Amino acid sequence: MVGIAEVARAAGVSKATASRALTGRGYVADDTRARVETAAAELGYIASTNAASLVTGRTQNIGVVLPHVNRWFFAEALEGIQAGLLEHGRDLTLYDAEPGTASRSAIFDTFLGRKRFDGLIAVCIEPDEREAVRLSTLGKPIVSIGCYDIGTSAVSIDDADAAWRATKHLIELGHRRIAFVGGEADGGPSTLGDARRIAGYLAAMQEAGLSEDILHVVSEVSMPGGYAASVDLLGDSRRRPTAIVGMCDEVAIGTIIAARRLGIHVPADLSVVGIDDHEHADMFALTTLQQKPRDQARLAVDILMHHIDGDHVEPRRIWEPARFIVRSSTGPLDSRQSSLDRRAATP
Amino acid sequence: MVGIAEVARAAGVSKATASRALTGRGYVADDTRARVETAAAELGYIASTNAASLVTGRTQNIGVVLPHVNRWFFAEALEGIQAGLLEHGRDLTLYDAEPGTASRSAIFDTFLGRKRFDGLIAVCIEPDEREAVRLSTLGKPIVSIGCYDIGTSAVSIDDADAAWRATKHLIELGHRRIAFVGGEADGGPSTLGDARRIAGYLAAMQEAGLSEDILHVVSEVSMPGGYAASVDLLGDSRRRPTAIVGMCDEVAIGTIIAARRLGIHVPADLSVVGIDDHEHADMFALTTLQQKPRDQARLAVDILMHHIDGDHVEPRRIWEPARFIVRSSTGPLDSRQSSLDRRAATP
Repeated sequence: MVGIAEVARAAGVSKATASRALTGRGYVADDTRARVETAAAELGYIASTNAASLVTGRTQNIGVVLPHVNRWFFAEALEGIQAGLLEHGRDLTLYDAEPGTASRSAIFDTFLGRKRFDGLIAVCIEPDEREAVRLSTLGKPIVSIGCYDIGTSAVSIDDADAAWRATKHLIELGHRRIAFVGGEADGGPSTLGDARRIAGYLAAMQEAGLSEDILHVVSEVSMPGGYAASVDLLGDSRRRPTAIVGMCDEVAIGTIIAARRLGIHVPADLSVVGIDDHEHADMFALTTLQQKPRDQARLAVDILMHHIDGDHVEPRRIWEPARFIVRSSTGPLDSRQSSLDRRAATP
Repeated sequence: MVGIAEVARAAGVSKATASRALTGRGYVADDTRARVETAAAELGYIASTNAASLVTGRTQNIGVVLPHVNRWFFAEALEGIQAGLLEHGRDLTLYDAEPGTASRSAIFDTFLGRKRFDGLIAVCIEPDEREAVRLSTLGKPIVSIGCYDIGTSAVSIDDADAAWRATKHLIELGHRRIAFVGGEADGGPSTLGDARRIAGYLAAMQEAGLSEDILHVVSEVSMPGGYAASVDLLGDSRRRPTAIVGMCDEVAIGTIIAARRLGIHVPADLSVVGIDDHEHADMFALTTLQQKPRDQARLAVDILMHHIDGDHVEPRRIWEPARFIVRSSTGPLDSRQSSLDRRAATP
């Protein structure tokens, strides 16, 4: 087998330089790197990172476990994690563990057990009891993104507070008939983050003495889900709310599209608020509570690196701020709606 | 260091069974696997996949290089690749190589050079000359998803044919003033797939003798991009086309949202066709050419596994069929539009 010394000799550089060029650790001028790489390719040199790993006990690799890739939050978070890990010179091994699938069982039963990583980032995975035990017996540092933190370091916004503020905003604009769209009914298989958002809405309504106006409309947490539920909800003008809190921006955008289709003007006839500041929020002028999955991801990477290096042993719980962005999808309850309200109150 | 023999003894199984349980290669009953895993955890056994790799020369890991995660096609393809690799017992290392970024340079200059994978799947990466050389000197099997195949095996739809058929469909419905929305103007930095779709539109228009009606409207290839360009295009009723081909469904959906906002009825006043069958296409009743990134991904995984195992040495070029799905966003040119057409023809 060709060794690093032969590559260095062929490229006319020191062994240390050849090693830096081939491992990416430390600075090497571009042309030097190219020369070393050409020499390595010509000689058939195989960088023995596996051998290096045996010596250091480090894989230079981080595992990322998440329930979906093809949804805005998760795709953004994954891009942020990747960017952070590249800066730290680490590879990223992906474990796409959608709840209830055979893939998820295989990941928890087998793949994670191989421990081909120095640490894990778990994005909103909300493990069941068995999965949580599995994670804790890995003996590797774990950082969570999302409100579920399984006792490890964790980064997320406060979902309950975000929904509370979204609802409060509508109440302060004079709305009373405020519906919440998205997620399962009580006891359904909502995620913990979704459940906390529903709880925030309920708390704001109760605090304002609007318990009788509480209306939670069940829907899939997606744009088509919000659209379908809103077409039903808004189609009947007698029971139509004057304002809607979407479980997330995708649901809220579905509501706005449904309103346009039904000729209901936003915000004159209907105020809509979301949570996320999704990449399409601006296009729909959506008022929302902003979260930045990329920032959460970068922070999670930094914390994990500290844990791996042994700098911080204690878990850290970080609540990221959610900035309120008021666009034009929300407005004060107008007199026309108020009179409708009064008529509705008189049978 | 605790060995596999001690784990097997503690779990009361053979070494072969213990190995299968811990590596995920081959069948093991669930309760047996649980017993072996418990024994391994209690004894502090660390599966020495690195040592195994040194012997076999295999990493049991596949690299995936792509330019984005947070776009429908790429996120779907990534989920499909992950599912396929899990079935083959392989890990997935992600390389998110957005063109023009420092991350992309780092991936091509350093990370890929570590060769911590048995093969690569390259999703629409369209490498420049230097990057292509880099890939070819890795000496690892590569399968591409997308129309750019760098001489390796590749899987994609025929983008030019898809756009040709989309345009032809509108021509057969009687439309003449058919615009194409999305992508850069001639010579702009379009991707190869985008460029081929534009070429397909141009070919269909020219074949039908409609060269003078060709109108390529530049826009970002996204829903907001299609929306913004379409608001401008449709806002002037005198130069308004009667039909639009979107670069992809996201652009076409942006066009439909713009039309609704301007009070233009689809398809009575405007026909719209896309390419992809995006997850939101059905919600907007969008006529489209379907491609299935998950299916392309599974096929790419299977081909790569054959290459790694040495079964197929010759590269294979697979053109996946794109099924035409006619929904209600396209319809015949009506008499009202025809008369507008005639008026427009008489200065």
